[in-house]
Amino acid sequence: AANKTLLVLPGDGIGPEVMREVHRVIDWMDRRRSVTFRIEEGMVGGAAIDAVGSPCPDETVAKARSADAVLFGSVGGPKWDSLPFDQRPELGILRLRKDLGLFANLRPALVMEPLVEASSLKADIVRGVDIMVVRETVGGVYFGEPRGVETLPDGKRRGFDTDVYHEDEIARVARVAFDLARKRRNKVTSVEKANVMQSGRLWRAVVGEVQRAEYPDVELENMYADNCAMQLCSRPKQFDVILGSNLFGDVLSDLAAALTGSLGMLPSATLGAVDPTSGKRYALYEPIHGSAPDIAGRGIANPCAQILSFAMLLRWSFGMEEDAALVESAVEKVLAGGLRTADIMQPGMARVGTSVMGEAVVREL
Amino acid sequence: AANKTLLVLPGDGIGPEVMREVHRVIDWMDRRRSVTFRIEEGMVGGAAIDAVGSPCPDETVAKARSADAVLFGSVGGPKWDSLPFDQRPELGILRLRKDLGLFANLRPALVMEPLVEASSLKADIVRGVDIMVVRETVGGVYFGEPRGVETLPDGKRRGFDTDVYHEDEIARVARVAFDLARKRRNKVTSVEKANVMQSGRLWRAVVGEVQRAEYPDVELENMYADNCAMQLCSRPKQFDVILGSNLFGDVLSDLAAALTGSLGMLPSATLGAVDPTSGKRYALYEPIHGSAPDIAGRGIANPCAQILSFAMLLRWSFGMEEDAALVESAVEKVLAGGLRTADIMQPGMARVGTSVMGEAVVREL
Ligand SMILES: CC(C)[C@H](C(=O)O)[C@@H](O)C(=O)O
Ligand SMILES: CC(C)[C@H](C(=O)O)[C@@H](O)C(=O)O
Repeated sequence: AANKTLLVLPGDGIGPEVMREVHRVIDWMDRRRSVTFRIEEGMVGGAAIDAVGSPCPDETVAKARSADAVLFGSVGGPKWDSLPFDQRPELGILRLRKDLGLFANLRPALVMEPLVEASSLKADIVRGVDIMVVRETVGGVYFGEPRGVETLPDGKRRGFDTDVYHEDEIARVARVAFDLARKRRNKVTSVEKANVMQSGRLWRAVVGEVQRAEYPDVELENMYADNCAMQLCSRPKQFDVILGSNLFGDVLSDLAAALTGSLGMLPSATLGAVDPTSGKRYALYEPIHGSAPDIAGRGIANPCAQILSFAMLLRWSFGMEEDAALVESAVEKVLAGGLRTADIMQPGMARVGTSVMGEAVVREL
Repeated sequence: AANKTLLVLPGDGIGPEVMREVHRVIDWMDRRRSVTFRIEEGMVGGAAIDAVGSPCPDETVAKARSADAVLFGSVGGPKWDSLPFDQRPELGILRLRKDLGLFANLRPALVMEPLVEASSLKADIVRGVDIMVVRETVGGVYFGEPRGVETLPDGKRRGFDTDVYHEDEIARVARVAFDLARKRRNKVTSVEKANVMQSGRLWRAVVGEVQRAEYPDVELENMYADNCAMQLCSRPKQFDVILGSNLFGDVLSDLAAALTGSLGMLPSATLGAVDPTSGKRYALYEPIHGSAPDIAGRGIANPCAQILSFAMLLRWSFGMEEDAALVESAVEKVLAGGLRTADIMQPGMARVGTSVMGEAVVREL
């Protein structure tokens, strides 16, 4: 019975080609695990701009609302780079986050043993790294008002943004981080610039209040964002869960991802609040990598991050822990078996393209 | 003849002890190079809070104004961590930057050959890295108004900051970056989040205008801050000069510094505009490392960054290129000879303390 509706938004660049490999995994589940998904497709990003003139058509938002979960590819590319600020492909993902209230972006930075050597960091520095970055995604400087570029009386321009947080916005994302830490190694590093920013000062205060009142058993460490960037680069193993604002979370989660050396392997989940009446929690899953326009259409992109995003979806949206773990271990086995896409290629391994990688994962399943 | 006045502000933590080693270098110059400096001392940071109740007393600002250059140590420590926002040691450096109009912070991230192995990155990734981060330091979210933490009618708090840039502020720091690039490898990577921030959109536009009008011979690349963090970690050699706002420059320069693996080696300069009447350019020199309260007073801190900050001072404030190069090569020779402070210790090298390191540099001179 197709009891779950899944909205698939392939987007731009390598999005569609890596999404094809997810469909193989879904097909396998249909056949073997008697779980059937009703798959809806939708348009987003540059593809949607080209087709209907908007990076996030209302129809896509409506479909996302009625689906049980959204599987997102990636958006953007040089083709749309010269469009004005308010018409760019990125608005696709930004509007979905905002309209669905997806406030907590979970970005694991995990170094799988077969890929230790793919990192630019020394093996002993990255072996065993397992970080979860929790990034706030509907507040802060991404959406704060007032914002704009104004022309002053003398003809000169001035550009400004507002980085703003309400204490409830901080507290709810902090709870997500503390809850995760309890299932992991029990430590949260909260990142801000409380020494120079007022929103950072409030951030530090509220995170501390939540910890003392609700999570006294979880260790809380406060760290300035500049120091966190340093520490991620030099001693990444000290981190368990990193919690940050929209902007710091963006930069630091990308850094955490990069240090694993295998961006093409990393999924993410963005979760909203649980609706008290329907019990439904909006959620969107996407790889951390971008649309990689330079390699799009060449059949060499790594589909693993998109496949692992689907595994996160099984776990977080449908509580299908067993199936999620099956998919994750299939991916690990394929890597242990020596297959590599170009991005994670290492001497002695077998270089394969997108679809061979996808097929191999299904075969392992 | 003591024709140059130098204001020395040791500050907190390891500041005073590493500054002592600079005094040895200055003494040597007095004796051997017939350059004499008039040295003034001043108070800043926690030390100034303890002595006179302000992290940046007016007297210190006045001395900085009348000096030809300022040599700064470092500020801060747990002792002052619970002070209210507007009384913290960090205000020492922030006020000096602002009051003296020191808008361009130059932060070299250089991997010296003897220290290649000190990096957490693989040797082939970092060998030869030579990046100069140019960070804007009097604008952006560090000083933008309005800012504050307010209590709403329902008793909830809201914290906000304004990230704001005027086009002239962007253009003048961009010129510093382009001028530097001309003397280096002729490439500037300008960093922002023009895809989500309006001040970033203006930043990208203005940097492009300056390049087209005044520096068509310099290569300009625009990069999002999250991507830059990734690229610094995975392929740092692609960078020559990186240009960023106060906030992005803070995080990315610390990351660039960290990847060299030798924070204790890295100096910085913060330059103001040239005064059209006096011809004087305010400038402040400081190590990139902080006050390191955990090791303060133990005689094990690395004095090299402070000594190299003095070398930058000779070059940038006094045009003493030859003397600057002398000091720099003395430091390199000491390292090549095998001496190491604890922070950069490697197997097979001789571990020494702060003063032995300082003496060795003077001996090389
Ligand atoms: C596409 C862009 C707007 C986005 C962001 O900055 O949030 C991206 O970098 C991300 O991290 O998902
Ligand atoms: C001390 C602090 C206010 C300062 C900053 O954020 O600018 C420091 O991190 C730096 O980079 O000089």
